Amino acid sequence: MTHTFMDSEFLLDTETARTLYHNYAEQMPIFDYHNHLSPKDIAEHRRFSNLAELWLEGDHYKWRAMRANSVEEFYITGEAEPYEKFEKWAQVLPRLAGSPLYHWTHLELQRYFGIHEVLCPKNARAVWEQTEEMMRGEGFDAVSLLEKMNVKVLCTTDDPGDSLKWHKRIAEDPSIPFKVCPSFRPDRYLSDPSGQAAKELCEKYHAKDITEALIRSLDYFRENGCLVSDHGFGVFPYSSEDRDFSGLMRTLGCAYAKQGIVMQLHLGAIRNNSPRLMELFGPDAGGDSVGSMTDPKAIAAFLGDLENVGSLPRTILYNLHPSDNTMLSTMAGCFAPKVQFGAAWWLNDHIRGITAQIDELMETGAFAASVGMLTDSRSFTSFVRHEYFRRIMCAKLGRLVEEGLYPADEETLGEMVKDVSYRNAERFFGTPAENNGVFDSGFAF
Amino acid sequence: MTHTFMDSEFLLDTETARTLYHNYAEQMPIFDYHNHLSPKDIAEHRRFSNLAELWLEGDHYKWRAMRANSVEEFYITGEAEPYEKFEKWAQVLPRLAGSPLYHWTHLELQRYFGIHEVLCPKNARAVWEQTEEMMRGEGFDAVSLLEKMNVKVLCTTDDPGDSLKWHKRIAEDPSIPFKVCPSFRPDRYLSDPSGQAAKELCEKYHAKDITEALIRSLDYFRENGCLVSDHGFGVFPYSSEDRDFSGLMRTLGCAYAKQGIVMQLHLGAIRNNSPRLMELFGPDAGGDSVGSMTDPKAIAAFLGDLENVGSLPRTILYNLHPSDNTMLSTMAGCFAPKVQFGAAWWLNDHIRGITAQIDELMETGAFAASVGMLTDSRSFTSFVRHEYFRRIMCAKLGRLVEEGLYPADEETLGEMVKDVSYRNAERFFGTPAENNGVFDSGFAF
Amino acid sequence: MTHTFMDSEFLLDTETARTLYHNYAEQMPIFDYHNHLSPKDIAEHRRFSNLAELWLEGDHYKWRAMRANSVEEFYITGEAEPYEKFEKWAQVLPRLAGSPLYHWTHLELQRYFGIHEVLCPKNARAVWEQTEEMMRGEGFDAVSLLEKMNVKVLCTTDDPGDSLKWHKRIAEDPSIPFKVCPSFRPDRYLSDPSGQAAKELCEKYHAKDITEALIRSLDYFRENGCLVSDHGFGVFPYSSEDRDFSGLMRTLGCAYAKQGIVMQLHLGAIRNNSPRLMELFGPDAGGDSVGSMTDPKAIAAFLGDLENVGSLPRTILYNLHPSDNTMLSTMAGCFAPKVQFGAAWWLNDHIRGITAQIDELMETGAFAASVGMLTDSRSFTSFVRHEYFRRIMCAKLGRLVEEGLYPADEETLGEMVKDVSYRNAERFFGTPAENNGVFDSGFAF
Repeated sequence: MTHTFMDSEFLLDTETARTLYHNYAEQMPIFDYHNHLSPKDIAEHRRFSNLAELWLEGDHYKWRAMRANSVEEFYITGEAEPYEKFEKWAQVLPRLAGSPLYHWTHLELQRYFGIHEVLCPKNARAVWEQTEEMMRGEGFDAVSLLEKMNVKVLCTTDDPGDSLKWHKRIAEDPSIPFKVCPSFRPDRYLSDPSGQAAKELCEKYHAKDITEALIRSLDYFRENGCLVSDHGFGVFPYSSEDRDFSGLMRTLGCAYAKQGIVMQLHLGAIRNNSPRLMELFGPDAGGDSVGSMTDPKAIAAFLGDLENVGSLPRTILYNLHPSDNTMLSTMAGCFAPKVQFGAAWWLNDHIRGITAQIDELMETGAFAASVGMLTDSRSFTSFVRHEYFRRIMCAKLGRLVEEGLYPADEETLGEMVKDVSYRNAERFFGTPAENNGVFDSGFAF
Repeated sequence: MTHTFMDSEFLLDTETARTLYHNYAEQMPIFDYHNHLSPKDIAEHRRFSNLAELWLEGDHYKWRAMRANSVEEFYITGEAEPYEKFEKWAQVLPRLAGSPLYHWTHLELQRYFGIHEVLCPKNARAVWEQTEEMMRGEGFDAVSLLEKMNVKVLCTTDDPGDSLKWHKRIAEDPSIPFKVCPSFRPDRYLSDPSGQAAKELCEKYHAKDITEALIRSLDYFRENGCLVSDHGFGVFPYSSEDRDFSGLMRTLGCAYAKQGIVMQLHLGAIRNNSPRLMELFGPDAGGDSVGSMTDPKAIAAFLGDLENVGSLPRTILYNLHPSDNTMLSTMAGCFAPKVQFGAAWWLNDHIRGITAQIDELMETGAFAASVGMLTDSRSFTSFVRHEYFRRIMCAKLGRLVEEGLYPADEETLGEMVKDVSYRNAERFFGTPAENNGVFDSGFAF
Repeated sequence: MTHTFMDSEFLLDTETARTLYHNYAEQMPIFDYHNHLSPKDIAEHRRFSNLAELWLEGDHYKWRAMRANSVEEFYITGEAEPYEKFEKWAQVLPRLAGSPLYHWTHLELQRYFGIHEVLCPKNARAVWEQTEEMMRGEGFDAVSLLEKMNVKVLCTTDDPGDSLKWHKRIAEDPSIPFKVCPSFRPDRYLSDPSGQAAKELCEKYHAKDITEALIRSLDYFRENGCLVSDHGFGVFPYSSEDRDFSGLMRTLGCAYAKQGIVMQLHLGAIRNNSPRLMELFGPDAGGDSVGSMTDPKAIAAFLGDLENVGSLPRTILYNLHPSDNTMLSTMAGCFAPKVQFGAAWWLNDHIRGITAQIDELMETGAFAASVGMLTDSRSFTSFVRHEYFRRIMCAKLGRLVEEGLYPADEETLGEMVKDVSYRNAERFFGTPAENNGVFDSGFAF
């Protein structure tokens, strides 16, 4: 039987999948524990006026797809009019068969605008006008877009030097019905601990060195609701003997454990490969790729050193190189349940990549205990990615039942779906002070 | 059509698969050429009194799954009562959708106990009592459990310092209807050739150095029926110029060739990542993971050096890192038929991993000449893993036929199934003295 | 529904797939931009007299399969009669379930000889005689075999020292209805820039050093229709600071850009692992394997350095290690549309490997802009591999539609199929002088 294109049963190819999605997954709220949304945009209830602004202003996924299909830079990051840029996107889109960009675009049209057409050059103008008209009305500011998706908690990604003034303003705004927590991302201080940024952070926090400055900043973040930190490494250069970088990582790890803050490690991206893109547009312009695989010994040493001093924080390991899946999943398993193998990250965020992460958790990890999906996005309409993940998860569970590999036990499966969709994240990132004690006193939750 | 949960057609999703499994695979005996069973348990016809003893005493696969699902250590390796431990396992089990542990548990209940229920918290007590009752009767000692699975040959894993007294006693016991052969596993002498264990081995064999001691021990093993050796390497540090480790490996390789003993290399595990688990329980407690990928140049150099001196033994290459599949399969192909790409090992021993190994053999290796499955287990009820493998293999062949990729030639397919299930192993490990000549004189069997 | 074995709908498991293949893919000509055919054989309209000559003389894929199934070397590369060798092949073939060799053999029997039987020991003699009879007639010389497959352009692989006399003769032969272009493959000069071969090339081109000699040779190749160069690296040892190898690579890259010649990098093979095969038969005897994964930093540095000086040629990156797919696809994406992630190479040229490459392009690359398939073969009947690829591509697109992941938009899908089958290659390799300007002045085609 051929399935209709992206209807309500999108990706749900068995009866079990449909039941699990519609009766369990769909109504669960969203705990988006890692994204790059602008807290300023939220605090100011920023409005968007058209699809070019919403979709094409900063989305280097889409830029890459357009360049690869020979769109001129003028229509991507150049001086072209917003509609012209959107029109080029609508021309390229039909060529993206099998791409998550294709599905995200249509899920966003459906969920945020109620448009169920297939976007193509023929209806580009009509879609543009219809959405522009809608965006002039209510419901398309940053807060409403998040509320519409049933978001309960959002963790943005923030610099340790940040004043967190937007987070404070959000916390005081009674019209914002969800929590927005800052996350601690100290990458630029770690990669250049004696640089200008580090000096400024030391001054700001009256600290004698960058370690002290970061710890004070972390305290400040924690006071302002921080639940999670984030580190990105092309190569993770940890060794037990290293006094500088590795010592600082150990100090931070211990501080996370003490504060009950989850530590995220994003491993294996290589940035700014194209000098031309870097020169013209700076970072985050579409010049990044998958890098080397991660050294298991470095990860094992880091986690082991923290465990040895009784200070292993809850941790999530993400890999950009898809071949690191099994290594990281089995590594996490050595330190479970404190350490988790994270969701399919960035360039792996597609049906095959998400399915591979779920398979991996089922085979070598702990699927039912996993914290599920996140957006990792700068876009206020990217929250359909949670739906994408949940549909893929329900499809996977449905296949297990259909193939006789798991009993048709709706209740147990439904509880697992609710756990992975939302409840495990709530528990894992949960009320830090309490969880911290539990996590430090033993293996159990 | 939805398949019933784990019935007689489990995993057999085409008519061809069902025919091949029931008419060809099912009746073949088992040649388990690599496991970690205790020869003492076999020699003494050890009896097991309950499922906790049988399943949870030493199985760190299950321990990991329990920890990852937040079971407290008290119920895993701690002081809890046997039934309490089993009850925790029954609570965790339903959360292991998609895990081989889920399938193995139910296959073991079905095949050894005739219980076709789905184990869950509700029937945990009843299953416990029913199996306990059965285990008080006949048929649940170590020998009977193996006999029930139609085992013909077993190769245990033994230390070169072992007296092999249990193997001798087994050989003299007319009530044991299968062969139990020792295997030569010299890892700890290779990793510390001047350590205490090495000294003791030298004394035992009146040898001037560890090389001589190992060769004498190997002779002794060979006299006592040894068919196969086994080496495990996190990283395989071979280089043609190295005089110590690499020289010893070359000497052993030549001795294996001379004696007609198959050489197994298990590549890419990293052990004891968690210092906490290591401190509390020692090795094999659930703290191991997939390590680095294997250096193709090191493997090529080792096999090439042995070939160069006319002493390449029959060899099986196993990888823990799933991304080494193609490299090892194509490397084995350079030295075929002497060198084989081995079965999906340890953390890869699940439907996707086994299917990937079979796919790899079909695409880049020699599926029809491969030696099939092994248990690699400490458990006397783990022999259902042969059934698991055979069902997956038949399913794969069935799909080829159903999809029009191979003709519906039952006879040829059936012979292949019988070869891979049992006969190839019998031939490959076979009567060493005879095979050795053939293998050394040319490429052919 | 079980599909008939390799009938006209082979691999086409949905209605959409069948429509796309028969109405769009099937009639497209072939642009085979990389192969190892002998230009002499084409120029001389070489005739083949039997299947042993056509299939077994130089095909080390088949040799490996025979060895792995214990055929003695006498029947592979030895003194056995041609029919005896063919008979051994017919004996081994049924054991190659799931191998591309199985499918290629039958596609070749079907397309070149109109034989739709399943080759096996029983009909080996009959097939031999029938084909031998046919080969005595017209249509089985090198030119006719290519013409039958609707080949429009062929790029052979040639040494920079080659006189290109056969290419010239072909160009002047009005009975050859397709273009045969030389390709520039300087590997042996790069690996030994001061060796004998390099000296001879310097003399031939009156050059002061190998760099100058290669550039002059490239000019000569370009004058004789060269569209593409080719480099193979086990490990790609590029670094921005290296003056010798890396400097020469930069010089060549700039020359390719200037001349509008596409640069191919074949990455990650390891050659001649078996000293025995190397000693007995030399290279290309079946002793090669997948090697190490490619260092992303080396590739990024090379492409970046060329881009930096405005001289990045159109480039195709091929990997032998299947785990490099995502890295190379995302790396290519940083430099799109100039740089492409290439087709599944060599040991990856099977259904799973081809599907993985298409998936990768769809998910992280630019499938619709990709240049499709090539044979990379020494065999004049290997052109069915284009059909194999096109069927797999149409099957993939058909599944997207059937599963509701892409609309049933035959027209758009059909145009994509025609692009990837032929038109993208025509454009990418196209008229170099014109394209060159466009490619150098910006990102667009």
